[in-house]
Amino acid sequence: MGKAHSHAYRDINMFFKLPFQVVPHTLCGIGDDLEETAKQYGFLNTEENWEKVVSNPDIDVIDICTPDSFHRDIAIAAAKANKHIICEKPLTVNYQFAREMRDAAKAGGVNNLCNFTYRGVPALRLIKRLIDQGKIGKPYAVKMQYLQDFSISPQFPFVWRMDSALAGPGIFGDKGSHLIDMTRYLLGEFDSVCSMSQIFIDKRKDLATGEMRKISTPDCAMFLAKLKCGAMASFELSNMAAGRKNAFLIEINGEKGSILFDLERLNEIKYFTYDDPPEQRGFRVILATEPEHDFIVNWWPSGHVLGWEHTFIHQIYGFLRAISEQCENESNFEDGAQCQQVVDAIVLSNQRGQWVSVDEIR
Amino acid sequence: MGKAHSHAYRDINMFFKLPFQVVPHTLCGIGDDLEETAKQYGFLNTEENWEKVVSNPDIDVIDICTPDSFHRDIAIAAAKANKHIICEKPLTVNYQFAREMRDAAKAGGVNNLCNFTYRGVPALRLIKRLIDQGKIGKPYAVKMQYLQDFSISPQFPFVWRMDSALAGPGIFGDKGSHLIDMTRYLLGEFDSVCSMSQIFIDKRKDLATGEMRKISTPDCAMFLAKLKCGAMASFELSNMAAGRKNAFLIEINGEKGSILFDLERLNEIKYFTYDDPPEQRGFRVILATEPEHDFIVNWWPSGHVLGWEHTFIHQIYGFLRAISEQCENESNFEDGAQCQQVVDAIVLSNQRGQWVSVDEIR
Amino acid sequence: MGKAHSHAYRDINMFFKLPFQVVPHTLCGIGDDLEETAKQYGFLNTEENWEKVVSNPDIDVIDICTPDSFHRDIAIAAAKANKHIICEKPLTVNYQFAREMRDAAKAGGVNNLCNFTYRGVPALRLIKRLIDQGKIGKPYAVKMQYLQDFSISPQFPFVWRMDSALAGPGIFGDKGSHLIDMTRYLLGEFDSVCSMSQIFIDKRKDLATGEMRKISTPDCAMFLAKLKCGAMASFELSNMAAGRKNAFLIEINGEKGSILFDLERLNEIKYFTYDDPPEQRGFRVILATEPEHDFIVNWWPSGHVLGWEHTFIHQIYGFLRAISEQCENESNFEDGAQCQQVVDAIVLSNQRGQWVSVDEIR
Amino acid sequence: MGKAHSHAYRDINMFFKLPFQVVPHTLCGIGDDLEETAKQYGFLNTEENWEKVVSNPDIDVIDICTPDSFHRDIAIAAAKANKHIICEKPLTVNYQFAREMRDAAKAGGVNNLCNFTYRGVPALRLIKRLIDQGKIGKPYAVKMQYLQDFSISPQFPFVWRMDSALAGPGIFGDKGSHLIDMTRYLLGEFDSVCSMSQIFIDKRKDLATGEMRKISTPDCAMFLAKLKCGAMASFELSNMAAGRKNAFLIEINGEKGSILFDLERLNEIKYFTYDDPPEQRGFRVILATEPEHDFIVNWWPSGHVLGWEHTFIHQIYGFLRAISEQCENESNFEDGAQCQQVVDAIVLSNQRGQWVSVDEIR
Repeated sequence: MGKAHSHAYRDINMFFKLPFQVVPHTLCGIGDDLEETAKQYGFLNTEENWEKVVSNPDIDVIDICTPDSFHRDIAIAAAKANKHIICEKPLTVNYQFAREMRDAAKAGGVNNLCNFTYRGVPALRLIKRLIDQGKIGKPYAVKMQYLQDFSISPQFPFVWRMDSALAGPGIFGDKGSHLIDMTRYLLGEFDSVCSMSQIFIDKRKDLATGEMRKISTPDCAMFLAKLKCGAMASFELSNMAAGRKNAFLIEINGEKGSILFDLERLNEIKYFTYDDPPEQRGFRVILATEPEHDFIVNWWPSGHVLGWEHTFIHQIYGFLRAISEQCENESNFEDGAQCQQVVDAIVLSNQRGQWVSVDEIR
Repeated sequence: MGKAHSHAYRDINMFFKLPFQVVPHTLCGIGDDLEETAKQYGFLNTEENWEKVVSNPDIDVIDICTPDSFHRDIAIAAAKANKHIICEKPLTVNYQFAREMRDAAKAGGVNNLCNFTYRGVPALRLIKRLIDQGKIGKPYAVKMQYLQDFSISPQFPFVWRMDSALAGPGIFGDKGSHLIDMTRYLLGEFDSVCSMSQIFIDKRKDLATGEMRKISTPDCAMFLAKLKCGAMASFELSNMAAGRKNAFLIEINGEKGSILFDLERLNEIKYFTYDDPPEQRGFRVILATEPEHDFIVNWWPSGHVLGWEHTFIHQIYGFLRAISEQCENESNFEDGAQCQQVVDAIVLSNQRGQWVSVDEIR
Repeated sequence: MGKAHSHAYRDINMFFKLPFQVVPHTLCGIGDDLEETAKQYGFLNTEENWEKVVSNPDIDVIDICTPDSFHRDIAIAAAKANKHIICEKPLTVNYQFAREMRDAAKAGGVNNLCNFTYRGVPALRLIKRLIDQGKIGKPYAVKMQYLQDFSISPQFPFVWRMDSALAGPGIFGDKGSHLIDMTRYLLGEFDSVCSMSQIFIDKRKDLATGEMRKISTPDCAMFLAKLKCGAMASFELSNMAAGRKNAFLIEINGEKGSILFDLERLNEIKYFTYDDPPEQRGFRVILATEPEHDFIVNWWPSGHVLGWEHTFIHQIYGFLRAISEQCENESNFEDGAQCQQVVDAIVLSNQRGQWVSVDEIR
Repeated sequence: MGKAHSHAYRDINMFFKLPFQVVPHTLCGIGDDLEETAKQYGFLNTEENWEKVVSNPDIDVIDICTPDSFHRDIAIAAAKANKHIICEKPLTVNYQFAREMRDAAKAGGVNNLCNFTYRGVPALRLIKRLIDQGKIGKPYAVKMQYLQDFSISPQFPFVWRMDSALAGPGIFGDKGSHLIDMTRYLLGEFDSVCSMSQIFIDKRKDLATGEMRKISTPDCAMFLAKLKCGAMASFELSNMAAGRKNAFLIEINGEKGSILFDLERLNEIKYFTYDDPPEQRGFRVILATEPEHDFIVNWWPSGHVLGWEHTFIHQIYGFLRAISEQCENESNFEDGAQCQQVVDAIVLSNQRGQWVSVDEIR
């Protein structure tokens, strides 16, 4: 994530007009390669102590790409120091912490971005626009999946994300927060959820120690949801879906049309509308690389497709523009907190084996 | 359905070798156009009283295409009269009736087919073969959807299937039984289920009376399931999925590979396997119209695709061949009953808003 | 082909209204299995001498499915006997013969069908309709391919179609006539052509004799054409295109839109139009199985796809309906002759290595 | 193009290891916004006189992104000044100039890159690898198209590329050189060609003057080719293919398999091989974003797709690495010259309306 964020800082002034030049000031981290990485990524300084970074008066924006459990302390300190804050998703590990972060940012009067990066995909913003224009009408059914297969091999080693003590809600936070935020972004709030999950490979080798470690976070999960807009929704998260490399899949069926999306073809959406004459109806593949689509005029001509990393530039641009215009940006800590509430409800449902109302999470 | 079955009888001896010639003997039904339909479909006789058909000694096979609520009585009478029986799916309206039908057929010593017609799709039989050969290994996640949009318009009229008094479990029996049987066919039995459903348009005009009638069966449903093989599964049924015309969609992710299917492209499957070299892996689109695929040598050369109706011929061929070989056919009343048990569990879960174990249904 | 035609006669009265019942009267052919095949296909009689069939007063329609070189004599005799005639494509082996057949049919006052069977694909008829409605405007570029891979293996044996003495123009007549007729059907006449071809495997085993035989017809050919409507066109024919099983591929780019087709997905077309709002443009996949599409109301509900063989039923229906209405059918011997003229021009261009005007063929 | 090159210089040291840091030294150009652009793109200096840039001892590499007709003089001067040279494709406007450039670079002992940028697409390099490994065997048929629709509207204005006096071979050089180089890269040299072309809209408004200007370069062209490897090939170039935004389409059919590509989905190829078991054969969609694919380890995890601009970084990386290793890079002026020879043959064929041997161009 640090690499993707750093790249965004490097490129943003070349492609997007801002009233200031972004300067990657200090790379904060640990490890022997910190200096080398800072040089490679274009940072002027390095620092191992994040508190020094937060208190540095030369720095205007704190960007948090640490493991999830560190997000809260850094963000709250940054807010107190009146720094604008970017925080990778999920915002933190539970709803209570999330509210604290949100409240601290508000109290500090700083812009805050919870980087749900897929809000920066032009094709997904086209979906948003079509929905907001009423093109699909009342939503009936929503299907969202985030499928990868990176850990399908039993030889894939133990990593910290597989230990619930460190990773909290695990895949529910990691992949789940993407799906939940996208659902909220497109269709609004969750009412209730019902979840199940599985660990298919229950021990993996810890490469650091050579020992087999017990896995305590799910490899795969499915959950149903009722949305406040009246739609039914189903979700799937998997790190072990053979052949699915980065398949963030969406299908929304509404009273007037349907929309499909697959992140592996992130420049495209599929759209069906009854506005077409009966004999000409069908799912059309829209390549969202036209000047009419968000962000495209800043890049290349029609049909010259964008990649995954561009989403970071778009998100950070929205954040920086909001700072320059002294207004709020979208995809903020409030969004991060709302998302966290739903994640907590899903985790609770997963434990109970029952439907859980999101309002129950406080 | 009667049209599709009649067509199968007409064509079967042309394409498949059987030791007897199929004769469409008597078309049983009601309505002014019975004679004309019989002539059009190639039946020699007509009859309005099904009991006379069942007792006619010239008739060897009874094929039941009535509304679901009539299946039981006809099938049991046919079994008692020692006729072989074909019955459209769902077998009947509840598990108890289904067991009675199964037991009667067994007692009568007759072949019995519950026509889960999609078992006759060559591409789906290829999926079955790949799974049975261990190509996808242990199954992890199963996604099945049956999506149409025929009733999405509020102008679409009231039909009997929308009245739960007549239609019993409604979409759960109609579309649900297809998904459940296919899951059982490919992967085995269900352990437990958790369902939700919605009626999006709650009143429709009865064209017979001109009155608005209340709708009491769901337009759309989703349910989760745990399978006895250890896989998680999610399901969706819809009559109001915009743009989906006959989308029976399958995705199965296993430890060694994945398989996808869409009935709108019923000659194809997509298959991913880790057996391919890493740099050459991907979902391959297999056109199941090669001589190596089931039934194809009876039809046309490679790439000359089959249609929906062929599935009926394949199913009825399997049934008739089993009669001629005096063995049992697959897709029988036992399958119909097992499927019905799962349907009942889903309906119960839908009422309770909770997980229901299939074993609870007796 | 005889199988596909026979099947059409068997099914046509079940699905299409005609004022008469089609009776498969006499199967004419040679070989030990003639009787058995006649029974299987539902013919009442057999005959080895085609002249007796042509002169039989009980017979109204002569259907010619012989090798191409026999078409002329049978068709002319049938025309003289005032029988309506169906003839498989290509109409014959050269333009002169084709004109004789056309003139004989006209003199005989009989309906005549050159069975360019793909005119019976509902999706292709939708393309025709869109073009005729002006949806793509002036056509600019046309690409047509007919690709199979049945003879790609060097072990695939010598068959008569590989001997130019028997097969005449070979692949130009066999596959080429399909592409040429479809081009004429959709876009009108050819002006001039420029062709090349290759034999990639020049000897194959004759299974009858065990000897290796020299191949004298092309495995693959490409040609360019100028159409009278002003469009440029390119064509490809291949029996050795790896993985292409029955890929009759079409792309037409016009001033207002584009259309794509692939026979391996014969229920679908892809259609792009500038009539859509700029941000919503894309190729839509239209599943041509709606009631609005040709022939569909005679078959099954939306989304219940048709297969390859249905095209024969549609073509023969058009022919029989024209007989019953005493009017001319489309896809007649005039079409067959015009197509043959273009085939001859392509063969001549292939020999000369130069552009050839179609008018030069007389 | 200057934007894409500048971006590559900005990013290359972040993602690729090189023994030196790339410094964008001087932006050479004309126009009022030169200073602003230089700042935006990260250049330290600006210059209006290219000769001063070429003679500046602080500069090691000259990158030429001018209109084609200026390439020659700048490249030759740079070579004489012993600067390494990058030149956008097409190398120049005719084969004679191209040879002069190639010879000058050789004489100057400098690295030279003719930037056929699509050689930098990881998916296309996978195609190259599969071919070189013999996976498709002897190539039989090659189809290449480069289709866009940017000028399809009659309202699209006159631009200099539409005047043959300025643009030379027009679309043959612009789009054609991409197709020709890719063919050479994958399959080797051309033997002979036969071309046709059309101007569909013959006058367009010059926005500078408000006058209608005559168009003298083709909107669309098609040509056939015989390759020295024995394959037949067909090509299409269009600026007026409705709905095609950046469709560089490839299909190669060989004796053992086939490969397809579409630049609008540039992370993917489709691959068919007879190595698969017969019942499992099909075109597989390979997402070329795995660590096994070229360049991917320098970017993001599996399935996190790349965009169009990455190809420039890959090409320039190959060039700079070759400089650092004191060896020759691929895609050099020799490739540019060979490509130009074929372009000239096509232009000649287009004029003559006949086949032209590439050797005829000297």
